[in-house]
Amino acid sequence: MKMINIIDKKRNGTELNDDEIQFFVDGVVNDTIPDYQISALLMAIYFQGMTKSERSSLTMKMMQSGEHLDLTSIPGIKVDKHSTGGVGDKVSLPLAAMVAATGIPVPMISGRGLGHTGGTLDKLEAIPGYQVEISEQAFLKQVSQEGLAIIGATKNIAPADKRIYSLRDVTDTVDSIPLIASSIMSKKIASGTDALVIDVKTGSGAFMKTLDKSIELAQALVEIGKSVGMKCIAVISDMNQPLGNKIGNALEIEESIDLLKGQGPADLKELVLTLGSYMVVLGEKANNFDEAKELLKDTITSGKALERFRALIKAQKGDTRVIEDYTVMPQAKYRIPLIAQKSGVISEIEADEVGIASMMLGGGRQKTDDQLDYAVGIELHKKIGDTIHEGEPILTIYSDQKNVDEVKQLLTNNIKISDHAEKPQMIYQIIK
Amino acid sequence: MKMINIIDKKRNGTELNDDEIQFFVDGVVNDTIPDYQISALLMAIYFQGMTKSERSSLTMKMMQSGEHLDLTSIPGIKVDKHSTGGVGDKVSLPLAAMVAATGIPVPMISGRGLGHTGGTLDKLEAIPGYQVEISEQAFLKQVSQEGLAIIGATKNIAPADKRIYSLRDVTDTVDSIPLIASSIMSKKIASGTDALVIDVKTGSGAFMKTLDKSIELAQALVEIGKSVGMKCIAVISDMNQPLGNKIGNALEIEESIDLLKGQGPADLKELVLTLGSYMVVLGEKANNFDEAKELLKDTITSGKALERFRALIKAQKGDTRVIEDYTVMPQAKYRIPLIAQKSGVISEIEADEVGIASMMLGGGRQKTDDQLDYAVGIELHKKIGDTIHEGEPILTIYSDQKNVDEVKQLLTNNIKISDHAEKPQMIYQIIK
Repeated sequence: MKMINIIDKKRNGTELNDDEIQFFVDGVVNDTIPDYQISALLMAIYFQGMTKSERSSLTMKMMQSGEHLDLTSIPGIKVDKHSTGGVGDKVSLPLAAMVAATGIPVPMISGRGLGHTGGTLDKLEAIPGYQVEISEQAFLKQVSQEGLAIIGATKNIAPADKRIYSLRDVTDTVDSIPLIASSIMSKKIASGTDALVIDVKTGSGAFMKTLDKSIELAQALVEIGKSVGMKCIAVISDMNQPLGNKIGNALEIEESIDLLKGQGPADLKELVLTLGSYMVVLGEKANNFDEAKELLKDTITSGKALERFRALIKAQKGDTRVIEDYTVMPQAKYRIPLIAQKSGVISEIEADEVGIASMMLGGGRQKTDDQLDYAVGIELHKKIGDTIHEGEPILTIYSDQKNVDEVKQLLTNNIKISDHAEKPQMIYQIIK
Repeated sequence: MKMINIIDKKRNGTELNDDEIQFFVDGVVNDTIPDYQISALLMAIYFQGMTKSERSSLTMKMMQSGEHLDLTSIPGIKVDKHSTGGVGDKVSLPLAAMVAATGIPVPMISGRGLGHTGGTLDKLEAIPGYQVEISEQAFLKQVSQEGLAIIGATKNIAPADKRIYSLRDVTDTVDSIPLIASSIMSKKIASGTDALVIDVKTGSGAFMKTLDKSIELAQALVEIGKSVGMKCIAVISDMNQPLGNKIGNALEIEESIDLLKGQGPADLKELVLTLGSYMVVLGEKANNFDEAKELLKDTITSGKALERFRALIKAQKGDTRVIEDYTVMPQAKYRIPLIAQKSGVISEIEADEVGIASMMLGGGRQKTDDQLDYAVGIELHKKIGDTIHEGEPILTIYSDQKNVDEVKQLLTNNIKISDHAEKPQMIYQIIK
């Protein structure tokens, strides 16, 4: 078998068979296929797409290219959540606690942030002492005993995907639905979960800008999951503005704990309840969505979800005092308001740019080895559809530097005030 | 400027501007753009094509990436010929002599063969002593004094094209019309010719299998030529079977000299006269095609063309006795006929496979550093449309090895005898 013939088949729109996909993935991992042939195939896939069978095959081969977790020692149906990524997306934190509180084991493997999007592990590390790197054995034990754990990858998961992903990034083949879908699913299948709820973001701040593309991706993800016997539901949710009000590591921990205390912003709450309800249904702790939603609401009012969050922090050596006192986390030196220059209705808050603003303050990474400042970030006082008066603060910048002119300018350029604007809906569609 | 943005523009179907193409070509030559980004762009170009303006720009930038010849010291309009390549294509040899005999200077820079196609330089080297590597100064002097020269490249012509070509070869992006056209034309413009006749082969043995694709390529070539002020005509000619009767280095020299002696196969003669007539018209030695054709026929009957061929060999230190005595060239030890197993009409002679058969005998190169056996090759006794009787030889294999079973098998598989078949036409279309 020769790589050039595989490129040729795909370029000409012919379906690749299992053996050809295996040859490709093996060559990626063993380094017997050079970068330039991989990138040529990726671009051909961008243009020609992949059939359902090709997508499943690529996902499985990439999954098999590395190690995978065995969660069978944990009793019950394990349910995980994945998000395609957005700004202000701290969903995993309250969600894991709430779902765990219903009795479903939540073994969550998360990542770090890069560019304008934050990472769940970075947010958790804003809590003094919290350990994200723990052994697999300790991870399994913690999920069995406490019902949840949120850690970084412990194993060499899908190495084929690692090499392919780094090439996609520099060859403009990132936004290919079959490549995105197989990348996500290969890692999720390797993580050993029984069921998966996927949050596919849509809108100007999302990877998929249009609803059509978001639906296409959601369908691809769910199809791959089903093809390997994993129970999957995708929720298409709004990313036309940041999620919730707070962006920044410590700030997002605050907002997560607020939510578990029955407070927190409505949009975040709606999304957490929706994703969580499908997790509870897939975890077979409720017969239907509405029943699951009631169960989840109860975990908040009863304090059980907050209790699980405390247990999570404690198990992973974090300072549990954070639950009552946010100031145990790093605090920003300056709180600088951004004042509205006119009255009207907020009509645009570009999520990407708010994410970049937070990164510029030190809350995110430009390069993978950048150090984070956990204290900094942005708190939105108004969101799309809210009325604002000239002179009122639109948001507060949390900074460790006094001069934030550049950040202010970027935010000003990316927040619009108009005569009229509707609040965007949070949930667009469910793909089962 | 960033390469990823150039890939993105092309991938999304937006026209690249001059600066972007310059950035790309510079990065190719200076090695500041990695192979994987070049190949991603090449595949995007394969799918999205290039506009007229992009093609001209890429051609000029690739031409300017290296050195170019200055032929202004040679008086008159210099006319060159290029062929997209086929099997049995010895056209350049008699053509250069005939056109030179009309008084048009023919400074020809040729190449070597690889795979199933032969190279003009390799064929000339079948003549003992013939030197293909001569200095630029000697080359210019020879063209001025003798009217013609056929040599290998003396300079670093279009280095950008060299790197791009070698990547196209391994990333399945060879058959992209804008890439083929800019590759050919960048080298031809660098060679300093005033006018160019291009032989675009079409058919099963050609690079372009269909007439439509061949026309598209011919138009692209002529358009680029015109855009830089070079007079260009393309002739679309048949490559559904090998050209002429002889395939192999010394064998093709024989057939070329036969033609200059007023003999030789009709198909080769028709093509040489057609291409030559357009060269004579572009070289302004005749007012129209018919006048040019008469002039060329005269160069044969008068012996002037043969005289020019002798002068060419002499000037480049070859053994001129070859003109009267072909046996001064290496002779094959064995002549083995391939016998027809049934009667009928020859309906298929796959040119590619005949070329591969000749390569297997030692007449061609599998790798660029393979040594050639000049004596070997194939002589066709029948061509498509010819009647054959069971027991008659279809062709003769010239070999230095007694056992040619594999070659016989390959040829048998690729020559068909049917009840009926038309002789294919030689010239399909002229693109001006």
